[in-house]
Amino acid sequence: MKLIRFGEAGKEKPGVMLSTICYDVSAHVNDYDEDFFANDGLKKLEQLVATAKLPVVNVDRYGSPVKRPSKIVCIGLNYSDHAKETGATPPSEPVIFFKSTSALIGPNDEVMIPRNSVKTDWEVELAVVIGKKASYVEEAEAMDYVAGYCLHNDISEREFQLERGGTWDKGKGCDTFAPIGPWLVTKDEVEDVHALRLWLTLNGQKVQDGSTSNLIFNVPFLISYVSKFMTLLPGDIISTGTPAGVGLGMNPPVYLKPGDVMELGIDGLGTSKQTVIAFKK
Amino acid sequence: MKLIRFGEAGKEKPGVMLSTICYDVSAHVNDYDEDFFANDGLKKLEQLVATAKLPVVNVDRYGSPVKRPSKIVCIGLNYSDHAKETGATPPSEPVIFFKSTSALIGPNDEVMIPRNSVKTDWEVELAVVIGKKASYVEEAEAMDYVAGYCLHNDISEREFQLERGGTWDKGKGCDTFAPIGPWLVTKDEVEDVHALRLWLTLNGQKVQDGSTSNLIFNVPFLISYVSKFMTLLPGDIISTGTPAGVGLGMNPPVYLKPGDVMELGIDGLGTSKQTVIAFKK
Repeated sequence: MKLIRFGEAGKEKPGVMLSTICYDVSAHVNDYDEDFFANDGLKKLEQLVATAKLPVVNVDRYGSPVKRPSKIVCIGLNYSDHAKETGATPPSEPVIFFKSTSALIGPNDEVMIPRNSVKTDWEVELAVVIGKKASYVEEAEAMDYVAGYCLHNDISEREFQLERGGTWDKGKGCDTFAPIGPWLVTKDEVEDVHALRLWLTLNGQKVQDGSTSNLIFNVPFLISYVSKFMTLLPGDIISTGTPAGVGLGMNPPVYLKPGDVMELGIDGLGTSKQTVIAFKK
Repeated sequence: MKLIRFGEAGKEKPGVMLSTICYDVSAHVNDYDEDFFANDGLKKLEQLVATAKLPVVNVDRYGSPVKRPSKIVCIGLNYSDHAKETGATPPSEPVIFFKSTSALIGPNDEVMIPRNSVKTDWEVELAVVIGKKASYVEEAEAMDYVAGYCLHNDISEREFQLERGGTWDKGKGCDTFAPIGPWLVTKDEVEDVHALRLWLTLNGQKVQDGSTSNLIFNVPFLISYVSKFMTLLPGDIISTGTPAGVGLGMNPPVYLKPGDVMELGIDGLGTSKQTVIAFKK
């Protein structure tokens, strides 16, 4: 199944996409949030889709397919080619940082450059949505905790992230810095999550073109690892890192400016497109 | 006013403490969460307290006085004596990190040492609760965004924080690592938030004894600063850093072990007490 949330920002309704047609499930499902995943929502939704006659909906805007989760945990430097382009040594264990959940937007919403930013950058990433509470999970069981996968552009302000002291968290959580979607694709629809091509174009020119086969730490390892430092709640997101081709890695570096257009995609998880706008309060 | 949440963990009800008596407001207030603060909840609560006859409640357990917020933003090295004891240079601008909100517990709940932890440590801190959405707030207006203050023990695993690669976030968000409360004391009841004594004892022996007058970056500066990197939502918490006297700073370092008892307090914000227990899944 492909889960969608559609409608005006902040008032999205839940739906499903079957083949290429979208259906409204808001008469049956409150929202795709922690409660939904914790209470066997995916299974009930499957039954609903199999038995009910659902209204077709014409989607004019997609929201994030998951309602604001308790946390978005991001993994840094998880592709060796990206680590190399940023001048970092590939890590011996995963680098963890957080993205403020207030950064979440729909997949085709505008990305806003923060005030005083000169180094806003892109990062196409595979995001994993957690399906049930995960604490001290073993790697062998970790895939049981996955609800599904989404496309994520982990927008990053490199000066805030790297030159302002302290942790990376400063450069990752500005408003609009987490376009996620269009869909949450359930785990059963993704044959091999470690063989997906992921790419990003800037103004039509390909800048990132990688494969999840090159993840340094794979999905079950990451779930197990993160779950030993904090409890993952249903609906939480782990974003697994980006391959080479970000603006920071170019010579000279290239950063986003108003009017730029990013398009990105991952095999089977859809595509998204964001236009960059200048800061406005 | 002093806001409390009381009752079984995960099923807390909202209440108020007036003088030394606790009252149940759950017939009138859903919970102390983002919606409450966003919708003028504090003002309505004040009116309720002034006019309604509320049932007295005998509190056997306090929960965190704020329901799980969208984020807990922590400030590192914000007292120069603490920076010195950890061997760090006082920062030229605030160090920001996140605490996973799944770490939140009541003020007198047990603190659990994580599996394989040998360096679990304490940190008494002043926590600021945000009252309304704050984005690019100027320092001069920042105090308008404060709902109130709480006592917080920012429990930290130093090996996870400092020796496992990447950001500090790994060592700050383990389950039970955020005992907050007993109360949310509204801003009007705190005459000068920059003149509060804060202390912590370990097994009856004083180890931390500081004053918020020694904050390197004060409360309005921090709110303004953080709001330029991410939007603070109603109910969000900023924990402002800890004074000297943590286990990491001792010679040799002292870390928590099962059976240890921490007691801590801040002038006007109450006291809390946590017993340390061994890891259990």
